[in-house]
Amino acid sequence: MSKVFSEKIKIALIQLKGSSADKSANLIKAKNLIDNAMTREPSTKIVVLPECFNAPYSVTKFRDYAEVINSEKKSQSVSLLSSIAARYKITLIGGSIPEIDLQTDNVYNTAIIFNENGDLIDKHRKVHLFDVDIPNGITFKESDSLSPGDKATTISTPYGNIGIGICYDMRFPELAMISARKYNAFAMIYPSAFNTVTGPMHWHLLAKARAVDNQMYTILCSPARDMESNYHAYGHSLVCDPKGNIISEAGEGEETIFAELDPKILEEFRAGIPLDKQRRFDVYTDVSK
Amino acid sequence: MSKVFSEKIKIALIQLKGSSADKSANLIKAKNLIDNAMTREPSTKIVVLPECFNAPYSVTKFRDYAEVINSEKKSQSVSLLSSIAARYKITLIGGSIPEIDLQTDNVYNTAIIFNENGDLIDKHRKVHLFDVDIPNGITFKESDSLSPGDKATTISTPYGNIGIGICYDMRFPELAMISARKYNAFAMIYPSAFNTVTGPMHWHLLAKARAVDNQMYTILCSPARDMESNYHAYGHSLVCDPKGNIISEAGEGEETIFAELDPKILEEFRAGIPLDKQRRFDVYTDVSK
Repeated sequence: MSKVFSEKIKIALIQLKGSSADKSANLIKAKNLIDNAMTREPSTKIVVLPECFNAPYSVTKFRDYAEVINSEKKSQSVSLLSSIAARYKITLIGGSIPEIDLQTDNVYNTAIIFNENGDLIDKHRKVHLFDVDIPNGITFKESDSLSPGDKATTISTPYGNIGIGICYDMRFPELAMISARKYNAFAMIYPSAFNTVTGPMHWHLLAKARAVDNQMYTILCSPARDMESNYHAYGHSLVCDPKGNIISEAGEGEETIFAELDPKILEEFRAGIPLDKQRRFDVYTDVSK
Repeated sequence: MSKVFSEKIKIALIQLKGSSADKSANLIKAKNLIDNAMTREPSTKIVVLPECFNAPYSVTKFRDYAEVINSEKKSQSVSLLSSIAARYKITLIGGSIPEIDLQTDNVYNTAIIFNENGDLIDKHRKVHLFDVDIPNGITFKESDSLSPGDKATTISTPYGNIGIGICYDMRFPELAMISARKYNAFAMIYPSAFNTVTGPMHWHLLAKARAVDNQMYTILCSPARDMESNYHAYGHSLVCDPKGNIISEAGEGEETIFAELDPKILEEFRAGIPLDKQRRFDVYTDVSK
């Protein structure tokens, strides 16, 4: 985990409408959209897919779509994403997919992450399950069918370290604090699916808060909104720079957005307001320890 | 620390222009503005003054204006604020004033807090000193003349518990996390003096971030902007509700604003999105422990 973010990198966020009941169709769509993105911007180094991009986002269906995820025997989604990452020599943050652990029979909401050789280098199981009940808003209970992950995740890439969380993980500041402080991550990437209630409330705010508090990029990749699905994703995939400026943002429909991440923005902000040298771990605990 | 926030309370923020060289004049102005506020809204229960309200905000002058703060022998500012709090039976967050500790010769930037009997119930010495150097922006180094405090502060009031920080403390999420989690505080109050560079960048964002992450009110009280002073405060004193909505905000000039804090807003948000029951202290450390 020693590489430092030192050169500009291009990133692509694939805001796909992936909630169809046909998993193979969802995967082909993901492949086609990544192909298109790499044709448009061949210098792209990091590609991000949304939360639950290969299946409907529904507590009653996660298990039906779940795959065993490991690097030896590649499942359908792992196999496809591995080949795409290797073909384009990209870091591919494979949104999230339903995962099953056959030993425990637990089902997880899991991000699968590939390096430029197509190796599955890590996975992040959603740590905080989305259990909310907002009056006149939305009720959703992931824990009815999912089990939570039990680790914070930071990956190493050729461009520096990146923290990974999934959607509701974003409401809990600790994962970003750990990635930024312990591993000097330059970005947090959250494949996410806020909805039309929580999105307008807090989507932009949470991205900006994680960015500014930790002086890092925050990147949110949402599914496109599908009003024919039971779950209406917010869309608005975005890249927020370390100072809290949204430098790229999608609308609600199926769309790919690009952004250039610039180490100078991060370095200047950290030099001007050197939070990391000023924290008072004599007064409070360092959550990254 | 057992009182729970259970009834609506009115709060007043006194955005005074207090940077004059004449300390007595600054104090008289503070008194007059509080008198006016209590005449306008006699049911007000909490009054907040800005950071460094009785002196110019300048690293070269803190020491000249510093007072010994203790509850036995009341200094000029302590004496005045004590009498005001007792007269109106209010909780008075006495912004901050320069404090000197004669034993160590240290100078602090200190909030003095009075209960409705006029007792000095606590003080908060700014924990994170404002040392920044923003290219083409602002350079300021409080640590040239100030020493930092060494504790997080939560006070008990008849209406529930309130966390206290001063200005730059706001950039460090831990103080609010501790007050909210350990003491069930319903609000963080930050007497603050962001400036015309950092204010437009992050004033509203940080207030909203602390509010939403901790599901509590965030209250910022700034001095009015004084273009004849060396330090140009941002103004824009505000009250942000737990959901991240700014419910009251001042402009840049001398002004008093009021807001009503409503326990229902907080309870509904905490019930709908129950973050406190969902934190994963098996995955990361609880900073409030």
